[in-house]
Amino acid sequence: MPDVTVVRRLRFNAAHRVHNPALSDEENRELFGKCNNPHGHGHNYELEVCVTGPVDPRTGYVIDLGIVRDVAGRLVVDAMDHKHLNHDVPFLRGVNPTTENIVVAIWNLLAPRIAPGRLARLRLWETENNYVEYEGR
Amino acid sequence: MPDVTVVRRLRFNAAHRVHNPALSDEENRELFGKCNNPHGHGHNYELEVCVTGPVDPRTGYVIDLGIVRDVAGRLVVDAMDHKHLNHDVPFLRGVNPTTENIVVAIWNLLAPRIAPGRLARLRLWETENNYVEYEGR
Amino acid sequence: MPDVTVVRRLRFNAAHRVHNPALSDEENRELFGKCNNPHGHGHNYELEVCVTGPVDPRTGYVIDLGIVRDVAGRLVVDAMDHKHLNHDVPFLRGVNPTTENIVVAIWNLLAPRIAPGRLARLRLWETENNYVEYEGR
Amino acid sequence: MPDVTVVRRLRFNAAHRVHNPALSDEENRELFGKCNNPHGHGHNYELEVCVTGPVDPRTGYVIDLGIVRDVAGRLVVDAMDHKHLNHDVPFLRGVNPTTENIVVAIWNLLAPRIAPGRLARLRLWETENNYVEYEGR
Amino acid sequence: MPDVTVVRRLRFNAAHRVHNPALSDEENRELFGKCNNPHGHGHNYELEVCVTGPVDPRTGYVIDLGIVRDVAGRLVVDAMDHKHLNHDVPFLRGVNPTTENIVVAIWNLLAPRIAPGRLARLRLWETENNYVEYEGR
Amino acid sequence: MPDVTVVRRLRFNAAHRVHNPALSDEENRELFGKCNNPHGHGHNYELEVCVTGPVDPRTGYVIDLGIVRDVAGRLVVDAMDHKHLNHDVPFLRGVNPTTENIVVAIWNLLAPRIAPGRLARLRLWETENNYVEYEGR
Repeated sequence: MPDVTVVRRLRFNAAHRVHNPALSDEENRELFGKCNNPHGHGHNYELEVCVTGPVDPRTGYVIDLGIVRDVAGRLVVDAMDHKHLNHDVPFLRGVNPTTENIVVAIWNLLAPRIAPGRLARLRLWETENNYVEYEGR
Repeated sequence: MPDVTVVRRLRFNAAHRVHNPALSDEENRELFGKCNNPHGHGHNYELEVCVTGPVDPRTGYVIDLGIVRDVAGRLVVDAMDHKHLNHDVPFLRGVNPTTENIVVAIWNLLAPRIAPGRLARLRLWETENNYVEYEGR
Repeated sequence: MPDVTVVRRLRFNAAHRVHNPALSDEENRELFGKCNNPHGHGHNYELEVCVTGPVDPRTGYVIDLGIVRDVAGRLVVDAMDHKHLNHDVPFLRGVNPTTENIVVAIWNLLAPRIAPGRLARLRLWETENNYVEYEGR
Repeated sequence: MPDVTVVRRLRFNAAHRVHNPALSDEENRELFGKCNNPHGHGHNYELEVCVTGPVDPRTGYVIDLGIVRDVAGRLVVDAMDHKHLNHDVPFLRGVNPTTENIVVAIWNLLAPRIAPGRLARLRLWETENNYVEYEGR
Repeated sequence: MPDVTVVRRLRFNAAHRVHNPALSDEENRELFGKCNNPHGHGHNYELEVCVTGPVDPRTGYVIDLGIVRDVAGRLVVDAMDHKHLNHDVPFLRGVNPTTENIVVAIWNLLAPRIAPGRLARLRLWETENNYVEYEGR
Repeated sequence: MPDVTVVRRLRFNAAHRVHNPALSDEENRELFGKCNNPHGHGHNYELEVCVTGPVDPRTGYVIDLGIVRDVAGRLVVDAMDHKHLNHDVPFLRGVNPTTENIVVAIWNLLAPRIAPGRLARLRLWETENNYVEYEGR
């Protein structure tokens, strides 16, 4: 069977402050500028979860995208939507919530839970002009 | 001369918490649910500034949209972008930052400063599924 | 209090066949061409529900958009999503499901149920290039 | 019968130079800046043609949008697509091709040719951030 | 010469029913839920055809995208647009029209007909939140 | 450290004429049709600059996307925005400005200037239906 990649897009609205607690306030301001605003700012994040695998001849699916929506909905969206990423998200405790760090954290959370197929790529948009991609290696 | 409406779109990324300080915490939680999260959440806001007037035969413009971009950029975007709307924005001091209240506050700020032409409509998107319109009356 | 218009977008995926049962098959083919294909074709419909009213000073809302989502979700989306509009939708029984006729039927369904505020406009997209607007008169 | 507005979106890709031939080169440079670049620049224009009228009970249409597409396609898109608006478009001869002036010229061309229904509004996007609206008065 | 990938997007509006005729009605309902609605539902499908190859120094093209549009327009869009995928499309006869199965069928149809360059990837959107990718292996 | 790809989107509005000066006018007309219009036509170009590398633990960034925006803004957008690509852009002198040739020229300009991380992919949209991708080999 050929390998097809199936993709499900999810959304969450969150506040964040780009801030590395290991650095001084002045270093943070210098590195991150307006993204270091003490009370934070926010985004409408969009996440694409991409799963690759053979097409099951019984269902015609690589994986039922309803499963992807439910698993990522529960683990990612329920944890991050309408939250402040520096304060409210257990799996980001102590993490500087740049888009790069967020996407790696989401990967580590989702990769072991996606089956059939394998998590092949995540894309995370912070704005319509900025996004990141991660393939787990 | 016929009246044409010209529109300029601007963007700002901000955190907010839907919260009425005149009510108890419990009333706020009941009314606003997850939008009342104490540290806030956030959005990529999009604002359309619509200006109506006759076309100037010399320029072919109702108003140079560069002026709209500069005035709204300075008064609105510089004040709100990468900010927390409950803490950092002077013209929202004491205002519960629902999209309705924000759009009325932006109108009051912009309407006296837009010329030639007159501010005719504002549209403010909070997410791709929710927006508000205001025509100043 | 000033009047603000608040808008909520909803989506449903449906099949339809443009067909007037009062006309002959030949007249239908002539009038509607490929849109009259016997088994139907389909669209990702998008609906904007626009509600106008004063801003409630207690909530900062014209109407809680969660109410709009729930009412229109139950009456419109649950009835039309993943359905064939010529066969499966009670409130379209006997109606030729052009975008014009659908939007009027949705208006008649929603207008008496939206409060506070009043239903002011519906927009219904059939494709990214075609949509209709209706203001109830 | 209630009045519904039906909308068809069309696209054309064109070059233009914002330039008023009645003014000196220096005045043009001062007024129009980079938009006055001598060889011009260009845009992917998008045009929305909005037609209002009663719904015909025989067809369920205000107007067959295929007619709107064909009439506007022939008169507007064929004349403007892959053209330089300052050199190649007969109905813009001598016109400074600002978005305002273009939309009024398109209105004058289309309004007498749209029936049934009446041309109610044109929207013309120059970029994703700039557009104009015109209702013919 | 370096290899560039050129991409052309096409659209078609179709009805479909997710249904495996080798299974019982009850198994189909259980596996596919609302996507198994007997009369079907529908989508505005979007297809990206991606062709990779060296740039021809004479034309500056990998392949004239007008050829891609014409070949895919004739073989794919003409066959699927305004059709019911379970009833009207010869190359999907007996196929359960999941997005995965559709994209593999389109690949098999297009891959031998695209030249110069080689078909490198297809992307097929069913909704704004769901799409599939296929690279032919 | 894992490799993440970060992406920044930029925009420029330009005129161009698809024309190979090494060929006769007739050959150009035959090869390029309406894209060979003597005065040119134009587009709202969108460029995605994709940079891959390890995440710096100090900043949480692969590269500060503000640097990508500034470098590509200065080298690409300032040179091409509101310009005619056949006349006004030094690094396209003598180049037939097809999307393929433009993306290779932008690559050669940007690749040596992007660090930390390495330029991994460029995507350039000419219209919403046509784009190219280039990975530098």
